Amino acid sequence: MTPALAFFYGGLVHRKNILNQLFLSFICMGIVTSQWCLFGFSFAFGPGNSAFGSFKFGALRFPGDQSHLYGERDDPNNSPTFPLLTYVAYQAAFAVITPALISGAIVGRMKIVSYLIFISVWTTVCYDPLARWVFSYQGWLHKYGTLDFAGGTVIHISSGVAGLVSSLILGKRHDYDPNKHDTAHNLPFTLLGTCLLWIGWSGFNGGSASAANGLAALALINTNVAAASALVTWVVIDAILGTITISGACSAAVVGLVVITPAAGFVQPGWALLLGVIGSIIIYFVLKIKKRFLHFDDTLDTFSCHGV
Amino acid sequence: MTPALAFFYGGLVHRKNILNQLFLSFICMGIVTSQWCLFGFSFAFGPGNSAFGSFKFGALRFPGDQSHLYGERDDPNNSPTFPLLTYVAYQAAFAVITPALISGAIVGRMKIVSYLIFISVWTTVCYDPLARWVFSYQGWLHKYGTLDFAGGTVIHISSGVAGLVSSLILGKRHDYDPNKHDTAHNLPFTLLGTCLLWIGWSGFNGGSASAANGLAALALINTNVAAASALVTWVVIDAILGTITISGACSAAVVGLVVITPAAGFVQPGWALLLGVIGSIIIYFVLKIKKRFLHFDDTLDTFSCHGV
Amino acid sequence: MTPALAFFYGGLVHRKNILNQLFLSFICMGIVTSQWCLFGFSFAFGPGNSAFGSFKFGALRFPGDQSHLYGERDDPNNSPTFPLLTYVAYQAAFAVITPALISGAIVGRMKIVSYLIFISVWTTVCYDPLARWVFSYQGWLHKYGTLDFAGGTVIHISSGVAGLVSSLILGKRHDYDPNKHDTAHNLPFTLLGTCLLWIGWSGFNGGSASAANGLAALALINTNVAAASALVTWVVIDAILGTITISGACSAAVVGLVVITPAAGFVQPGWALLLGVIGSIIIYFVLKIKKRFLHFDDTLDTFSCHGV
Repeated sequence: MTPALAFFYGGLVHRKNILNQLFLSFICMGIVTSQWCLFGFSFAFGPGNSAFGSFKFGALRFPGDQSHLYGERDDPNNSPTFPLLTYVAYQAAFAVITPALISGAIVGRMKIVSYLIFISVWTTVCYDPLARWVFSYQGWLHKYGTLDFAGGTVIHISSGVAGLVSSLILGKRHDYDPNKHDTAHNLPFTLLGTCLLWIGWSGFNGGSASAANGLAALALINTNVAAASALVTWVVIDAILGTITISGACSAAVVGLVVITPAAGFVQPGWALLLGVIGSIIIYFVLKIKKRFLHFDDTLDTFSCHGV
Repeated sequence: MTPALAFFYGGLVHRKNILNQLFLSFICMGIVTSQWCLFGFSFAFGPGNSAFGSFKFGALRFPGDQSHLYGERDDPNNSPTFPLLTYVAYQAAFAVITPALISGAIVGRMKIVSYLIFISVWTTVCYDPLARWVFSYQGWLHKYGTLDFAGGTVIHISSGVAGLVSSLILGKRHDYDPNKHDTAHNLPFTLLGTCLLWIGWSGFNGGSASAANGLAALALINTNVAAASALVTWVVIDAILGTITISGACSAAVVGLVVITPAAGFVQPGWALLLGVIGSIIIYFVLKIKKRFLHFDDTLDTFSCHGV
Repeated sequence: MTPALAFFYGGLVHRKNILNQLFLSFICMGIVTSQWCLFGFSFAFGPGNSAFGSFKFGALRFPGDQSHLYGERDDPNNSPTFPLLTYVAYQAAFAVITPALISGAIVGRMKIVSYLIFISVWTTVCYDPLARWVFSYQGWLHKYGTLDFAGGTVIHISSGVAGLVSSLILGKRHDYDPNKHDTAHNLPFTLLGTCLLWIGWSGFNGGSASAANGLAALALINTNVAAASALVTWVVIDAILGTITISGACSAAVVGLVVITPAAGFVQPGWALLLGVIGSIIIYFVLKIKKRFLHFDDTLDTFSCHGV
């Protein structure tokens, strides 16, 4: 997913920024995976209270029996059938992509070293606690009954809001012009990224069933159907209002994937199709409004696509 | 597979057509997946007679027990061990790529909106019935004893013939010149597409065993061996007759994959190797003959590679 | 993995060599897979003595019960739960990528036909025996107690040394200049290749557990953690000493993956992180020394990254 995001973003930016933009996603695979191994996983899922974990699982050393962590995920009777390290790896993929999503909002406006420090701090201070609250069975939002199948809150709202805040703090690019928004220079890369995201998302949402069962199949189908219906809806609106564009079609598919994420295992496929249609229409006009009236430089629409 | 096809075709066309060509494959993921969810799967695999299904499974709503569909696939004693929705998702991948294959025959000669309508109609009127006849245990060709392991008839012959008919109806491109056939502008994309097709094909053919067993392993091995031997054969002929080209090598691998598809689970690896060699030789000279004598504009040889 | 390598190498070479370089990896998928089916697997894993197999499993025909081959891999009590053909396919992936790795050392200095012959001979004479010695439970190095989890000796040292020898025999490119080393023309392709290698490597190392169990999860985590820590280490050194580069970051990830390969299932994640850091530091300075003092033309540092 994170390399896919690199190419999705990389194809949309100006030619001069592509290597920089690719690097911003790629380096998250280094920083966040290392942090996750050293203390991130422990901080999010280790022993602790309902707000924070601890450093007891630092360097992924688990004392004694490892299975006690999962007895209560969704269903107390549904004990896990996979090793704890598998769950560590699966959750690492979420942890890595979330800060990478933010990089779409700050194209060409942050020095590499500042970015490295920002990512290290953000993932520890923002992501890890949020993951604990929602994904860990010890988290207070989880106990409260929050339904978030595969990360609507933890991943998309958090990165969308962080992107909005970052882009407001950093200000506009000095050559920013809302009417010349589209400087995408390599749309084949964007399409490649979109398709790899789509495929990876099937694993993200399907994997949230925590088993190879009917729930995983439902989440898989819903993910694909929502992306498909969002894509068709966007292209139809585009065809009616003006010109069909590849960048619009790619964004539409991603919007469909984001929209179904928190609901992927909770609705039937017909509703997933409808969610894709509704999400696509709303974001289509949010982007129109943003472009005309709201002149903050959320370059690749991280906030509009993920936050909204 | 469908994004892979987008890049396979996208790299072979003229620079001015690449975005259009990528879009033709990509939009199939939207249209066909939506149609498959709404009524396509039901029309192909739902309750009905030996020629057509019905709309009873519309929007993928299955009344009561879902397992009854699979009791007779290949072996009455071999009951399925996966949820029906998994089968829906797996078959959706076939349904999506088949119309996308046609797009290789009509490069640069169909308006987008016409194409969108064409795909929607073709998949309902041509693909769905064919899938029922051959893949559903209720289909008349299946009952007749047709052996088609992973879609030689349903996918490759159908899309190849549809491509031929479309290209004949649409006529030649106005700048068509059979002696200046090769306008491929981005062969790395074609290679990327070929390799992703190869990998995806392993899943297509292996998955047709409907289980993670020895039959799946056989289909996987055969798929790889046939692609490999077709590739080597083509390169050897090329080296003897003239120059080795990347586009030839890529086509050869795809030819090997197409040739083994209907037989993937029915032959031993040695025969798969031989099938790859024979298929590669035949198509090599079919393309030579087509280029010299048959001046229809099947731009990317959809009919020659898939239909023949 | 092999297409990934094609793009990793393809992006690093001069523009005039990219198609050639892509082809050098791609054709290994044809030659080695065919050879593996015809006699390679039999020669490496078939009945025989502790140094060589035989041709009794030629064309992958196995007489009688197939399971006897695997009873002693790692643990006599841990009998395999997968078909022999699955193991053939898995080992084929290793056999295919090893000669492809060599192609990074000989960029632009070998005729295609010579290369085709070289690969065919090398895989039979060098790779197959080495695979028998280390990976087969009948091999003498395996019996001796050699620990090589996923191919440090068989794949990386062998291809690294073969690359060094080839580049010394072939001599330098006539336009070789050690001070103008970096002619990479398409770094996005290199990043694409790196990320696909990273993902494929998870399967290579995880798969070496020969089961979907805790050992596979450990190898998966270690693989990702070592790549991540090597990447961060390299970027930090780069940031201190001079400029951060994409090509450096990509090489760093590959170095981390190579370093953990033979140890992936034998160490805890904390040690994997440390191995990544140490490997990254050593290779960073090996490359500096090579560039300044050792003027052999191992173009893409196959020997330095894999051999050392």
